[in-house]
Amino acid sequence: MKIAVDAMGGDNAPQVVLAGVQRARDEFSELEFTLYGDEAQLTPLIKDMTRLTIVHTTEKINGDDEPVKAVRRKKQASMVLAAQAVKNQTADAVFSLGSTGALLAAGLFIVGRIPGIDRPGLMPTLPTTDGHGFVMLDVGANAEGKPQQLVNYAVMGDFYARDLRGLRQPRVALLNNGTEPNKGDSLHQETYQLLSQLEGLNFIGNIESDKLLQGVADVVVTDGFTGNAALKATEGTAKTILKLVKSAIMDSGFKGKLGGLLLKDGIKNIASTFDVSSYGGAVLLGLKAPVIKAHGGADADAVYYTIRQIREMLANDTVGKVQAYFAATKGHTSVDK
Amino acid sequence: MKIAVDAMGGDNAPQVVLAGVQRARDEFSELEFTLYGDEAQLTPLIKDMTRLTIVHTTEKINGDDEPVKAVRRKKQASMVLAAQAVKNQTADAVFSLGSTGALLAAGLFIVGRIPGIDRPGLMPTLPTTDGHGFVMLDVGANAEGKPQQLVNYAVMGDFYARDLRGLRQPRVALLNNGTEPNKGDSLHQETYQLLSQLEGLNFIGNIESDKLLQGVADVVVTDGFTGNAALKATEGTAKTILKLVKSAIMDSGFKGKLGGLLLKDGIKNIASTFDVSSYGGAVLLGLKAPVIKAHGGADADAVYYTIRQIREMLANDTVGKVQAYFAATKGHTSVDK
Repeated sequence: MKIAVDAMGGDNAPQVVLAGVQRARDEFSELEFTLYGDEAQLTPLIKDMTRLTIVHTTEKINGDDEPVKAVRRKKQASMVLAAQAVKNQTADAVFSLGSTGALLAAGLFIVGRIPGIDRPGLMPTLPTTDGHGFVMLDVGANAEGKPQQLVNYAVMGDFYARDLRGLRQPRVALLNNGTEPNKGDSLHQETYQLLSQLEGLNFIGNIESDKLLQGVADVVVTDGFTGNAALKATEGTAKTILKLVKSAIMDSGFKGKLGGLLLKDGIKNIASTFDVSSYGGAVLLGLKAPVIKAHGGADADAVYYTIRQIREMLANDTVGKVQAYFAATKGHTSVDK
Repeated sequence: MKIAVDAMGGDNAPQVVLAGVQRARDEFSELEFTLYGDEAQLTPLIKDMTRLTIVHTTEKINGDDEPVKAVRRKKQASMVLAAQAVKNQTADAVFSLGSTGALLAAGLFIVGRIPGIDRPGLMPTLPTTDGHGFVMLDVGANAEGKPQQLVNYAVMGDFYARDLRGLRQPRVALLNNGTEPNKGDSLHQETYQLLSQLEGLNFIGNIESDKLLQGVADVVVTDGFTGNAALKATEGTAKTILKLVKSAIMDSGFKGKLGGLLLKDGIKNIASTFDVSSYGGAVLLGLKAPVIKAHGGADADAVYYTIRQIREMLANDTVGKVQAYFAATKGHTSVDK
């Protein structure tokens, strides 16, 4: 299994990238890595070159670059070269901590879509209070969703949950503004009907966004615009409340600080349950190979967890299964006329 | 100022309704209330009938009634009679803790829309870490938003923030999936353009939902579907994290419990900052009179705060100003061709 790594993407690159990559390399003997980036910066960070190859480049895509233009023009950028490696079949998966928009563009224009899939979906794994987590897609690859695209997200999320979570009948739900079948705008009403009719899918109906963290579904299907709003509201609120808890401890004098000290482990547990990075990166599903994005601010542990996730996707051939499914249904799921 | 009260709506009706109403009545001598509900249940809860009138009815709308049907068929329901009172000009505002959908239907079919406003918007006040809060609309009255409807929400939210919050130039933002002007689907791109051109509006651009609680805007404009998802994700996450903090205290043995005891006030403060009820109810803006909904689970304090909010809307003639604005612009805001 060969993973093409954009070693220069993210806030703390290349340090955290190389630390996470080397940990994964040490643990999993089947993994080989090609690191795209500035050799002068990378070499001092590497203790042992076993199963690592450096492809030197000094060009990189920045967070404020316009994604599509950047991918088209910066042909030697570390992210672009990593995507090219997959296209040229010298690597099996792409991994980056860089700009989500640019990675989506690189995925679309270089790696390419699976025939039958109109738009890839961006799918993070989110935490739940029971510790199992769930996947949600699309959270922003595609701002204008169509019913059939949402059905494709459901199919892909279902494959992923079976392979990566080992679930036999993942519970698939549609994010909507109420639980009744007739809820939502026309997009969500039509999607509900299509999902209800889709054979082999354990569609459990609508879910409202206040239930997301409660572990009631394994795969949550949503259009990219709503999914983005729900994801960011969830992340922003969790961060805000935990910050307020910390301030409450720091600002409440000796009594509060002592209380905080006694509670430290408990609160740390919560913070780590809601630390999205331990669940791996966000997958761009619908492309011809695993293209996976970790948070720009990810640390070495998060990089390691994300590589473990890529390894599982490759070991299970999840993308191959998705591709076979859409080939068998001729690019249309069975509910299509 | 006469307020028509649906005394039977909500989980703890009529007790909390009457307790809150009487507290507001005692404090504000200009308020008069007509209470619609079961006289046999209401009378024992009233200490003093000053400025209270009971209109007896035993019919009520339940949470599982289909809203439009219920409002059309249950002509003697407490909520329907309260809305009728405003239509007949025997009351100036409607207040209910009952079904949001039914109240929206009663508002549309009985109270009526302001000419020029296609769809009313549901607007709650949400907390921010700086304690000022902000309003957001629409959070679910209208699942299929159009650009001009979102512009109307901006205008109405702006009037409300000026009157009720005393802000001279409320910061109005559009909820979107990124901050750049060209972000979002076509609905949000078009709305951005219209808002940028709207004279007299302090439009500060796009806001992402992870920034909602940080107090960066006074009025957040959104379509009802996305607004609903962002609102519920925010509420659900806040509730979940605070519950986890409590469990961390309870489950961590003597040390943790002691810590919790020492931190009790600090954590209570956070819970009360995020207790939406102290910010009043959700207003259905765009109707000919204030129609206001408190949470079904609201307590007597929340009822009191919501009545105080209604009183301010009436004292400022907020609905009258909105009506005059849309009359002057002939039902179209100035950006229309």
